[in-house]
Amino acid sequence: MTEKQIDLGIQQLELEFGTGYVKKALENIKKFKIEIPSWIFGNFGGGRFGDYMPPAGARTIEEKLDDAAIVHKLMGASDTVAMHMLWDFSRDGMDSDIEIAQHVNKEAKARGLIVGSISPTYFMRGSQRGSLSSPDDKTQKRYIEQTVLSGVIAREIGSDLVTIWIPDGSLYPGQIELRSAQEKTRAALTEIKNRIDKKVNVLIEYKLFEPGTYSTVVSDWGSAFMLAQQLGENFGVLVDLGHHPHGTNVEQIVARLIGSGIRCGFHFNTRYAADDDHSVEPSGEMARIFYELVSGDVLFNSNAKKNWAYMIDQCSARENRIHAIMHSIDSLQISLARASLLDRQVLQQLQNSDEIILANRYFNSALLNADVRPIIAVARQEKNLPVDPFAAFIQSGYQQKIEMERSK
Amino acid sequence: MTEKQIDLGIQQLELEFGTGYVKKALENIKKFKIEIPSWIFGNFGGGRFGDYMPPAGARTIEEKLDDAAIVHKLMGASDTVAMHMLWDFSRDGMDSDIEIAQHVNKEAKARGLIVGSISPTYFMRGSQRGSLSSPDDKTQKRYIEQTVLSGVIAREIGSDLVTIWIPDGSLYPGQIELRSAQEKTRAALTEIKNRIDKKVNVLIEYKLFEPGTYSTVVSDWGSAFMLAQQLGENFGVLVDLGHHPHGTNVEQIVARLIGSGIRCGFHFNTRYAADDDHSVEPSGEMARIFYELVSGDVLFNSNAKKNWAYMIDQCSARENRIHAIMHSIDSLQISLARASLLDRQVLQQLQNSDEIILANRYFNSALLNADVRPIIAVARQEKNLPVDPFAAFIQSGYQQKIEMERSK
Amino acid sequence: MTEKQIDLGIQQLELEFGTGYVKKALENIKKFKIEIPSWIFGNFGGGRFGDYMPPAGARTIEEKLDDAAIVHKLMGASDTVAMHMLWDFSRDGMDSDIEIAQHVNKEAKARGLIVGSISPTYFMRGSQRGSLSSPDDKTQKRYIEQTVLSGVIAREIGSDLVTIWIPDGSLYPGQIELRSAQEKTRAALTEIKNRIDKKVNVLIEYKLFEPGTYSTVVSDWGSAFMLAQQLGENFGVLVDLGHHPHGTNVEQIVARLIGSGIRCGFHFNTRYAADDDHSVEPSGEMARIFYELVSGDVLFNSNAKKNWAYMIDQCSARENRIHAIMHSIDSLQISLARASLLDRQVLQQLQNSDEIILANRYFNSALLNADVRPIIAVARQEKNLPVDPFAAFIQSGYQQKIEMERSK
Amino acid sequence: MTEKQIDLGIQQLELEFGTGYVKKALENIKKFKIEIPSWIFGNFGGGRFGDYMPPAGARTIEEKLDDAAIVHKLMGASDTVAMHMLWDFSRDGMDSDIEIAQHVNKEAKARGLIVGSISPTYFMRGSQRGSLSSPDDKTQKRYIEQTVLSGVIAREIGSDLVTIWIPDGSLYPGQIELRSAQEKTRAALTEIKNRIDKKVNVLIEYKLFEPGTYSTVVSDWGSAFMLAQQLGENFGVLVDLGHHPHGTNVEQIVARLIGSGIRCGFHFNTRYAADDDHSVEPSGEMARIFYELVSGDVLFNSNAKKNWAYMIDQCSARENRIHAIMHSIDSLQISLARASLLDRQVLQQLQNSDEIILANRYFNSALLNADVRPIIAVARQEKNLPVDPFAAFIQSGYQQKIEMERSK
Repeated sequence: MTEKQIDLGIQQLELEFGTGYVKKALENIKKFKIEIPSWIFGNFGGGRFGDYMPPAGARTIEEKLDDAAIVHKLMGASDTVAMHMLWDFSRDGMDSDIEIAQHVNKEAKARGLIVGSISPTYFMRGSQRGSLSSPDDKTQKRYIEQTVLSGVIAREIGSDLVTIWIPDGSLYPGQIELRSAQEKTRAALTEIKNRIDKKVNVLIEYKLFEPGTYSTVVSDWGSAFMLAQQLGENFGVLVDLGHHPHGTNVEQIVARLIGSGIRCGFHFNTRYAADDDHSVEPSGEMARIFYELVSGDVLFNSNAKKNWAYMIDQCSARENRIHAIMHSIDSLQISLARASLLDRQVLQQLQNSDEIILANRYFNSALLNADVRPIIAVARQEKNLPVDPFAAFIQSGYQQKIEMERSK
Repeated sequence: MTEKQIDLGIQQLELEFGTGYVKKALENIKKFKIEIPSWIFGNFGGGRFGDYMPPAGARTIEEKLDDAAIVHKLMGASDTVAMHMLWDFSRDGMDSDIEIAQHVNKEAKARGLIVGSISPTYFMRGSQRGSLSSPDDKTQKRYIEQTVLSGVIAREIGSDLVTIWIPDGSLYPGQIELRSAQEKTRAALTEIKNRIDKKVNVLIEYKLFEPGTYSTVVSDWGSAFMLAQQLGENFGVLVDLGHHPHGTNVEQIVARLIGSGIRCGFHFNTRYAADDDHSVEPSGEMARIFYELVSGDVLFNSNAKKNWAYMIDQCSARENRIHAIMHSIDSLQISLARASLLDRQVLQQLQNSDEIILANRYFNSALLNADVRPIIAVARQEKNLPVDPFAAFIQSGYQQKIEMERSK
Repeated sequence: MTEKQIDLGIQQLELEFGTGYVKKALENIKKFKIEIPSWIFGNFGGGRFGDYMPPAGARTIEEKLDDAAIVHKLMGASDTVAMHMLWDFSRDGMDSDIEIAQHVNKEAKARGLIVGSISPTYFMRGSQRGSLSSPDDKTQKRYIEQTVLSGVIAREIGSDLVTIWIPDGSLYPGQIELRSAQEKTRAALTEIKNRIDKKVNVLIEYKLFEPGTYSTVVSDWGSAFMLAQQLGENFGVLVDLGHHPHGTNVEQIVARLIGSGIRCGFHFNTRYAADDDHSVEPSGEMARIFYELVSGDVLFNSNAKKNWAYMIDQCSARENRIHAIMHSIDSLQISLARASLLDRQVLQQLQNSDEIILANRYFNSALLNADVRPIIAVARQEKNLPVDPFAAFIQSGYQQKIEMERSK
Repeated sequence: MTEKQIDLGIQQLELEFGTGYVKKALENIKKFKIEIPSWIFGNFGGGRFGDYMPPAGARTIEEKLDDAAIVHKLMGASDTVAMHMLWDFSRDGMDSDIEIAQHVNKEAKARGLIVGSISPTYFMRGSQRGSLSSPDDKTQKRYIEQTVLSGVIAREIGSDLVTIWIPDGSLYPGQIELRSAQEKTRAALTEIKNRIDKKVNVLIEYKLFEPGTYSTVVSDWGSAFMLAQQLGENFGVLVDLGHHPHGTNVEQIVARLIGSGIRCGFHFNTRYAADDDHSVEPSGEMARIFYELVSGDVLFNSNAKKNWAYMIDQCSARENRIHAIMHSIDSLQISLARASLLDRQVLQQLQNSDEIILANRYFNSALLNADVRPIIAVARQEKNLPVDPFAAFIQSGYQQKIEMERSK
């Protein structure tokens, strides 16, 4: 995008939405920070194609941080990196070690990065009968301890945020008692709550299915909300786009959670089929979600306690991972810019006069029709970042470098 | 089913599940009561086929009660009839009148029937912009008053139960503000709560979509639960089988709601495609739902306050309605009998030893494989009812009689 | 959109996509014709809200044509109007009359409009047991005759196009024999085929469910394709966006049908929940569908026989219908313009080098990110149409006029 | 199940359905053969839980055949074993070897087993850009050759049956051209068809999604049918329960395919969430599918060429695999017995008189309500098999034996 294109684009947006809203959108883009996951960069396959993985997967946490650092250097919006207890802070995949976390923290800082949310890892060796709801007391205990430790790490090293996804469930009717799995989960979380520093926010993620295909203990936002309600103030709900039945109005779930006053978070990604965990694309749905976040004032609230947590959670088993994460960041910026352009008074007038089609058209004018990429470009310029981070990445030679270095 | 068949069947069940469980199932069937809706018998079409309706639709509330009475006479399980404020207690479809309700109550009693749950009617004339969330204050007020009156009627005449389905939503993104629709709904319900007698239980029904296709204010169990939580003890959630996305594990929602301690209710029917509102069929899913209700002790709890409310909600626009409602009652009895046969200790042993397939097989032995119709037959005999109520209905000549009388 | 905005926008698009592609998109928009349905303007309700309908519904076919004429006058893209045999050409809702069709044709011409596709109407009085698959021979015969007549009307008056939607199905397992319903349908269509002029194209529409909720004879594209294959060359498949299970990749169905060489058609509308039949919105999905139509060369093929048929099928029971149909036309133009901008060679290079993310980004640059409204504006200017047809409609006073005239 | 239980049960069934139908069901069960997959017994994990797998996974094809042999010895219904080209007949996971196939054949025969359908393996190393639709000619060629070889093996060693599942698709819009992927697939299949012996039946499997999540070349029955039609007589469609969108009426797809006259096949398993590949449970849906197979005469047709192919395809990553496969066989027998009991004349009379509910009740009397396990028991007795194969398996000590032997 040349200077001319940027200039034409900004003029056009200002003529349509007014300089105030364009300026607001620009400010929002400049302020917007999104946490990225360490695991996206790792050396894992997708289960098919002979466990194919794209070249240059990071072999160590240091290499993952290297990749996160280049992304942040190019796009300037993701200095915080989410960590997984058993992937990033463990020697044996069974227990985590705060000393490793401290080491990772040092490595992150050395690269200008920050350790962000901490995710206990409930789905590794020994969890086939469940984690927090395991009928085996020792197993349940092990996961409780890991979670408590994740709280300590989040407080001492991270950003006071623990996000938990509980993969407990069942494959067949009759395999487990549904109610007791739920009660065990609640009991475990209650112990965790009692032992975790109240300054740590704990977000409970829900997911429709997988690994359990018949039942999942925390399968929808209602079940996560019910738990969060019962546990208390520092517990919230974590929304992930791919974790819903088809046809779900996700922006309305966001609206409801904002309305409830609970402090929540979002795991961004794109889905077509199931829980695809693809790169974010700048779809209408994503723009509508951002409209709720912006108008619900949980994105840049001056009272930081009211802001939700924003993370990307994606797994790119086939595509270039650095491209993939940059694509997501760019798409989120586009979605946010769109959501920032609307004049809510104009919208409300149309709504109040029951002008259904005109309200939808005004809504879509920003959320589907406007080209907001010039705003993103200006934001990058003002932050001394490359306007086209993809071109910059390709030019940098980083990909070739890691492909060579990491090929054994 | 002859005496011989019944006898063989009971023997077989006793050999498989033990006399104790067969007896328990029999007792449960004899105790089980299910409320039926007045509206099933009415003279309405299904929107297609030139608004075709099956012959002999009831033209008045008295005729609806006649039909309900014959069903109860034949099957002995449904002496309670659900009423709709604007269908059954209104002259003009806009306001309800307690005097009509009192008249209906007398008519019901004269037929050995009881007025059951009261449903405010939010989806008639003047509700196109919403009912409890209407931006028009007068409209919202009208629906609040109707709901408060439904509480009075439920207390004075009915069974202390109000069930509400809120059809508010939108068709297009941008048509309404999602968060304010939710807040208005909550505000209206709060006023209702403050004005309704605490002895009245209010159940909030959720529904995935329709009439709103883009958004629905109370679209899932989580949103109904959130409201019920905020409103207080006498509010609960109403589950209807057809109101979920495909692939939803409904028995787990039941388990969760039981676990929450909230007093809820069920609208039984069967669905294949969307919100079909068909007759209940004795499917595996229905048996699993009853397993949760039985094992969760919300069906025959000695503390009546803990029992949920059980209603049929169906709309049979093409099929014989009296057949349809009798089919549902029979299918619910089958499902309950199945759910009553399992020895939970046997099941838990298999679960504890992680015998996944064996647990599923034991579960299915009762829920999918056993033939429990002999238990239903004995229950009918012991209550001096016809063993085959369908044959009895056909023999009674009732259908021909009403077809003649009601054809103008 | 001012001259300045148009000018800035065109410049920007030319800088991004090149003048050639912008010109191509402009030509496409100018050539693009879309058939609109007569029934959208009619005086029907949506089944809820006391059968609410928006003010000023057309009471006669003449009034429907008046509304279609104003839409065409303002937007210049929809001179052809689809007709329904029993809604538009019948006195009694049971049989159609070619003389009425001839009268309608005259009325259409008088308004500068053309009678387009003819739809037999299979779902009115007497069809509750099915139409073409009815077990009642007389009923089946009646629908066959109606269809044959629709072929005559399509040949003599319309555009040689018959579109059929068969609402046959069932509500419960066991209600009908699935295989025989299918065989009866095929037999009826075979008779129709033998009696209809080969110059008439017959498109078979499929629909997931409704009115049948357990089974639908023609429920998916495969079943329509199977029938079309068996019937022969002048039979094709009619795709309607709302007639698929959630999560269906509709653009791929379009690609498959194009690949098969069968001549097909599209019923445009938008869906969120089920078969919503809302106004088209310019979503990513719609742009991708147009990408297949454009790249598959079935939109402006110089061999007119290869072009598919393009129709809007929508039902706007709550919103202003003239707004609604104009919104659809506008959204289709946006989708087409987007699909016309891509340089397939650039795309293929990225595809060939397995640059997954970069290919998606290039694809999205036109389909999701570009603002093509300036192209639509120029097309309107060049056709001497108002750049903003909504403003022009509001200014025209037409809505107030019909609201007054048609309020009895 | 004791003699007494069996006797009571048979009497009861004869009283309800008549001795003729009970006898017919018994004969069907005795004749019914179901192919089982070699891969179910293998040593693979499920992707989660640290790649947990149940104890005693078979490490070699010989051990897989040992497990298949014990299943057949106990249940007498599965002497045929499906093989996968790269799992069972390959040294390196890239190419297959007919000599290995011959060896496997000998090993199978030595255990009283038969090599059944042959599946080319398209989803291993080197397939990440597609198999038959790969843009890389060498890759496409390799898969064509493998498929041709699978035809040779099917003809020389197996049962003249090749089943193919093509995992080609894409993750993002724009990643591939949808139409060209389809055309390449068709071209590759055309070459395969020309080179494969016409006596070999080739079944094309479809699957909604995975590994492709945005697009899948053969995603639904329509796309498999389209290909089969174009390829010719020895090509058919392979139905797998888990490969459909939720809410799909699978028995109707079966009815359509039977109606088309194409020779098809079925991969049995159970699904709740996505493509679960669980053990078959005896659900209402499965009974309805068998009703179509039985009434459509593609199960025991005296003209063997008309019979479909019946296979189990399941993957039991958590549960005991031998239990799991035995559970499936048992459940299929139950489903078949149910479908065999109905008197179609009785059903048709109810259908003809539009007795919707009574038809559904009669249908369900066999498909949902009857207990047919006594029929299965008699069939086992008459074939000198244990009435309770699960008890027999547990008593045999086989599980302990292989757990010991195979633990390294």
